[in-house]
Amino acid sequence: MHTERFDTVRAIAWEDGVLKLLDQRRLPQVTEYIACKDVEDVAAAIRDMVVRGAPAIGVTAAYGVVLAAQGRYRNAPDTWRQDIVIDLELLAAARPTAVNLCWAIERMQRFFEAVDADPNPLLLAEARKIHEEDIAANKAMGELGKSLFTERCAVLTHCNTGSLATAGYGTALGVIRSAYAADLVSQVYADETRPWLQGSRLTAWELVQDHIPVTLIAEGADAYLMKQGEVKWVIVGADRIAANGDVANKIGTYNAAVLARYHGVKFMVVAPTSTIDMNTPDGTAIRIEMRAEDELLKFSDQRIAAPGAHAWNPVFDVTPAELIDVIVTEKGIVTAPTMVKMRALLEQ
Amino acid sequence: MHTERFDTVRAIAWEDGVLKLLDQRRLPQVTEYIACKDVEDVAAAIRDMVVRGAPAIGVTAAYGVVLAAQGRYRNAPDTWRQDIVIDLELLAAARPTAVNLCWAIERMQRFFEAVDADPNPLLLAEARKIHEEDIAANKAMGELGKSLFTERCAVLTHCNTGSLATAGYGTALGVIRSAYAADLVSQVYADETRPWLQGSRLTAWELVQDHIPVTLIAEGADAYLMKQGEVKWVIVGADRIAANGDVANKIGTYNAAVLARYHGVKFMVVAPTSTIDMNTPDGTAIRIEMRAEDELLKFSDQRIAAPGAHAWNPVFDVTPAELIDVIVTEKGIVTAPTMVKMRALLEQ
Repeated sequence: MHTERFDTVRAIAWEDGVLKLLDQRRLPQVTEYIACKDVEDVAAAIRDMVVRGAPAIGVTAAYGVVLAAQGRYRNAPDTWRQDIVIDLELLAAARPTAVNLCWAIERMQRFFEAVDADPNPLLLAEARKIHEEDIAANKAMGELGKSLFTERCAVLTHCNTGSLATAGYGTALGVIRSAYAADLVSQVYADETRPWLQGSRLTAWELVQDHIPVTLIAEGADAYLMKQGEVKWVIVGADRIAANGDVANKIGTYNAAVLARYHGVKFMVVAPTSTIDMNTPDGTAIRIEMRAEDELLKFSDQRIAAPGAHAWNPVFDVTPAELIDVIVTEKGIVTAPTMVKMRALLEQ
Repeated sequence: MHTERFDTVRAIAWEDGVLKLLDQRRLPQVTEYIACKDVEDVAAAIRDMVVRGAPAIGVTAAYGVVLAAQGRYRNAPDTWRQDIVIDLELLAAARPTAVNLCWAIERMQRFFEAVDADPNPLLLAEARKIHEEDIAANKAMGELGKSLFTERCAVLTHCNTGSLATAGYGTALGVIRSAYAADLVSQVYADETRPWLQGSRLTAWELVQDHIPVTLIAEGADAYLMKQGEVKWVIVGADRIAANGDVANKIGTYNAAVLARYHGVKFMVVAPTSTIDMNTPDGTAIRIEMRAEDELLKFSDQRIAAPGAHAWNPVFDVTPAELIDVIVTEKGIVTAPTMVKMRALLEQ
């Protein structure tokens, strides 16, 4: 058994009325927090990917609502509930695919009517609760996901789903942490995850800190790696799960799911129930964010590609439920997801 | 109909007894030729990827044999045939996967006995012939591959298989050039091709010069692109084709083949018969070159990944014949390749 080391990285911290976000664009070279003092700062941080990862975006948005309410209440105590609507729209529009963003805003809104005077104490308490619940959910998912391992094996993960993508511990990376601590993981392979290199920059950084052996590969090597037979699980997070179990996640996830099925490798999605959107019937209804061509055409502001070349840069893709062996949530495990099973999970 | 523009890029040029190689490591920012004056220079250029692409490596090796023979004959006219053996071994070991390297060396060796005195005129003529034949083969493959298009469509290609990877025109990119000139290609999607970015740096550069619209994508976006339905063909080159039709090619090719089959997209391999190795029964017998971890961990000498992270960097993978719809060679087309069909192609 490995000694489990709890990660100490905190991507999101509320200190003295200011939201501090670890600037993930600069990792692993520079560890620097950006201070958000109002809702505009928070929306910009989400949009510009200072913070990323669906659960982390949700927690960040909750604190964003606190900052918005602070500002609106200070300016106009009588009309803050109306005035804040524009702030909530700004926050919600910061990134379109991660449903946790809207989920957190809506959860915070439910408390608007409960306060007579200064809404800040109650809203801050709720944001802190969302923050803490996410960590607890990750720990619960870690245990549940670990229980699915029937043998010690190598795993492949995509993007970053760890402490940096959540309130702490991680979704897919939380399962990997738990399974590694139980000596069920021989090796973690991590897709470098183009174009943003979340795997190389963030996942590798977290795992090295936890002394978990990590080997980066290009996404192009996924199939050849699976062919070697060592990898038994692909474990990924989710940005939105539709009612039928289709999963929107970082571009390249759908690739890995098709390749896993072809090679008989099992495919596990790990996400809190806040990621499930029962209002989205299936993956075709999920809006996929497109980002700037320059994320592919440049590297560190240096042009890589020939002038005149274009790029197509969808940030997410949709993995159909039929390619997913299991979805792990804090409320339980759904095997071979369907709409009936997803509804049953949420209603239990 | 588009006016066909013949590419004018020449990656390999023999001038005044010196082999000039366009340094592909520095494209597209810098267009610079490296002069190889002896066989050591040539071996280093192949090993260090000044020149890459199986057919281009073959042509380069042929000129390398000329330079080796020049040197050995000048030093010891009586024993050059024995003395050169070590040079040929050096050349052959420069890169292990591309069979065109050994094919060219063996073809040059056949002329060693035919000369009494200075071998250079005959060997140089043979190297030039290999060079010219490769261009002619590419043009022939372009026509054959084009004939397989049944509709105007988008295509996806991987790595670089154009003028830079061959003596000129290209294999897979030659087919794309021919099909585009016949107005059969609506759009070329090119995988950026990690880690060396041959797609972004080389393929995009060539296509922009030819005014062929090119859109780069991350390999992780392959499946999602295919899902859109616009791409009807994946067209790639080969570094070695085994006797049964298994194809070793740039890492990521096997990924694309699995994804193409899943999405009902056809998969075409384009390579001259010099790439076919009937001594390799199938893909399991092909040695896959592993390159330095730093190709993934660094970019432009800047470390990307967290210190302590490792990388697995196979340069090629093997696509099984069963995933290949058609292999196009200068001698003809093989549909659903098998050993019997490959042998028949070579014996015709």
